[in-house]
Amino acid sequence: MADPATSPPLTRASVQEALKLIEPHIHKTPVLTNTTLSTLASTPRTSAELEGTPWAGQAPAKPVIRIWLKCENLQRIGAFKVRGAFHAIERLKREPGWEEGGGRERGVVTHSSGNHAQALALAARENGIPAYIVMPTISAAPKIAATKGYGANVIFSGSTSVEREAAATKVIQETGARLLPPYDHPDIMLGQGTLGLELQDQVNSALASSSPPYSSLVDTQTRQLDAIIAPCGGGGMLSGVALSCEGTGIRVFGAEPSYEGADDATRGYYAGKRVESVSSLTIADGLRTPVGIYPWQVIFERKLVSGMYSVTETEIIAALRLVYERVKVVVEPSAVVGLAVALYNEDFRAMVEKEAGEDGWDLGVVFSGGNVSLEALGKLFEG
Amino acid sequence: MADPATSPPLTRASVQEALKLIEPHIHKTPVLTNTTLSTLASTPRTSAELEGTPWAGQAPAKPVIRIWLKCENLQRIGAFKVRGAFHAIERLKREPGWEEGGGRERGVVTHSSGNHAQALALAARENGIPAYIVMPTISAAPKIAATKGYGANVIFSGSTSVEREAAATKVIQETGARLLPPYDHPDIMLGQGTLGLELQDQVNSALASSSPPYSSLVDTQTRQLDAIIAPCGGGGMLSGVALSCEGTGIRVFGAEPSYEGADDATRGYYAGKRVESVSSLTIADGLRTPVGIYPWQVIFERKLVSGMYSVTETEIIAALRLVYERVKVVVEPSAVVGLAVALYNEDFRAMVEKEAGEDGWDLGVVFSGGNVSLEALGKLFEG
Repeated sequence: MADPATSPPLTRASVQEALKLIEPHIHKTPVLTNTTLSTLASTPRTSAELEGTPWAGQAPAKPVIRIWLKCENLQRIGAFKVRGAFHAIERLKREPGWEEGGGRERGVVTHSSGNHAQALALAARENGIPAYIVMPTISAAPKIAATKGYGANVIFSGSTSVEREAAATKVIQETGARLLPPYDHPDIMLGQGTLGLELQDQVNSALASSSPPYSSLVDTQTRQLDAIIAPCGGGGMLSGVALSCEGTGIRVFGAEPSYEGADDATRGYYAGKRVESVSSLTIADGLRTPVGIYPWQVIFERKLVSGMYSVTETEIIAALRLVYERVKVVVEPSAVVGLAVALYNEDFRAMVEKEAGEDGWDLGVVFSGGNVSLEALGKLFEG
Repeated sequence: MADPATSPPLTRASVQEALKLIEPHIHKTPVLTNTTLSTLASTPRTSAELEGTPWAGQAPAKPVIRIWLKCENLQRIGAFKVRGAFHAIERLKREPGWEEGGGRERGVVTHSSGNHAQALALAARENGIPAYIVMPTISAAPKIAATKGYGANVIFSGSTSVEREAAATKVIQETGARLLPPYDHPDIMLGQGTLGLELQDQVNSALASSSPPYSSLVDTQTRQLDAIIAPCGGGGMLSGVALSCEGTGIRVFGAEPSYEGADDATRGYYAGKRVESVSSLTIADGLRTPVGIYPWQVIFERKLVSGMYSVTETEIIAALRLVYERVKVVVEPSAVVGLAVALYNEDFRAMVEKEAGEDGWDLGVVFSGGNVSLEALGKLFEG
């Protein structure tokens, strides 16, 4: 692993530095608004809707929420993961002795069957560095093809974490390649957090120019982004976004699926102790991992995340449908858990009502990725 | 019908005026780039791919095409149609005597089962004007619900054009509402053409700032948008975009489905005579209409469109799949015919090769809309 001791400090300034390094390689993804979603988020749920939920019988919350969607599903390779991958490689290139010691020729390695695999493959190719990606033999064929399509060497392994790590270790022994993990590393966190800087800039610029559709809803002249909610899997992106907001007054929240205990960070956050393993087959397959050690320091120990919330599989699917039908972008299930919290989690909604009052909040909602197979989509919506 | 004699002249300046009028009501939709699509468009097709096409046995064209996607699928109501609807209503409001004569109370009417229905309903509601939308009884339930959701009065009719027009005439007799047609009117064309102005501005700004991903492919300092290709149904949008480019040197092309004669404008363009009726069930259901009289004057008689091209149903579906998988936005089949031409129509590709040479073209490609049911999508991709 790249030695974390060589990483910049975990501060907002370091996220700003990271953005400068990766800007030539990434898309500044669009921020979309959608009147229907903001109206829904600002409409109290009915008693009927709350039946069968933990909030049955309670008075529904009445928050005012104006939603700003940060579309990292429109990022290169279809997910925010490229931000971390490009940053990790830029940092490697600046590590004393790496280039001179033949680091470039030896390459980089990771084990991932998801978006990080393609992200690292792309970042390595654009830098002329060999990439070795350990993927389980059972990975979906399109993911293997996409990773190979970006020029990576794909090494197959068993699907347990022990088997995957053993395969990666073997690659490192044979090639001298450097391990770049998907989330539990400061360089990855700082790179992934750059989306938070863009989001702040984009929302505040839009508010300053009183652009539609919110100019009629609120006095935009004095407003700024109030909060951001982002999905939390390993927590690299959430902690990076939290760093990007440090000292700005913008509050940051994390969102998780609750299915089969995938809400490990939420449980850990309120119990005061990181949950170290997760075994969930939630539909939000990018969020099946436990939160990492470095992200946890930022999220919990430094309290740069103000709260964690979770949603059910049904709520994720409902949010997914809304996004396809009304926002018209392709998102993977993991991408919409933040939106689902804003729409359906009464604890979150009551908190916004209490904190924001009648003025409400301008809430940045991170859509993390859009890598979903069309066949899977077809099945999801065929009912 | 709003008297076309009161419309501004069909010039670029009038499109600029239209944009000023509608800007507070519409989204400035994002322009996306995608390395995969541009690479595909700039890769010669193989002889095997050309088998079974009209170009079998010919040497494949070798164009260089950098694609810029104007995402009107992310527009309000999910399509460019709101641009025309808002502009038509803004023009009505400025028509001498309309307000004083009770025009606002009498409202507006149209017959449409598609995107124009929702567009006019929204534009009327935001202006506090009643809208009457004549829809065939057989229209899809979600479309009826969406139109009612925007507060319109939905009047049902038979599905032939005679029945629909009779129902609209009855509404006009009973209410005095003004008919606002979906495309064959100067005010609609000028409003829809505003997307062309935005596209020019967005691409030229991006090129000027040498932003990724094209900075490595070409000397961006001296480049500007070279051409635009847009779908052609009734031709309102295509002709409006052509007007938006008049005098700029940017060439404009139209794209149609070829299935069952839906390529009426293409056939008419090269035969020198407008084709007045079309009866096609092409999957690109927004493009089943014949090109209108006013659009035809701009497209053909004034030759502001430099060429018309068509694609097969198979090519449309292939482009659709690429967009979902790689661009991550939800598009309806009609939206991708321009992209399909750039990827698969050898006549177009050979023309670009000849005209653009090694420098290639920066080509604006209009994604016109994203209104497709999830169930229809599921079926399309289940195979």
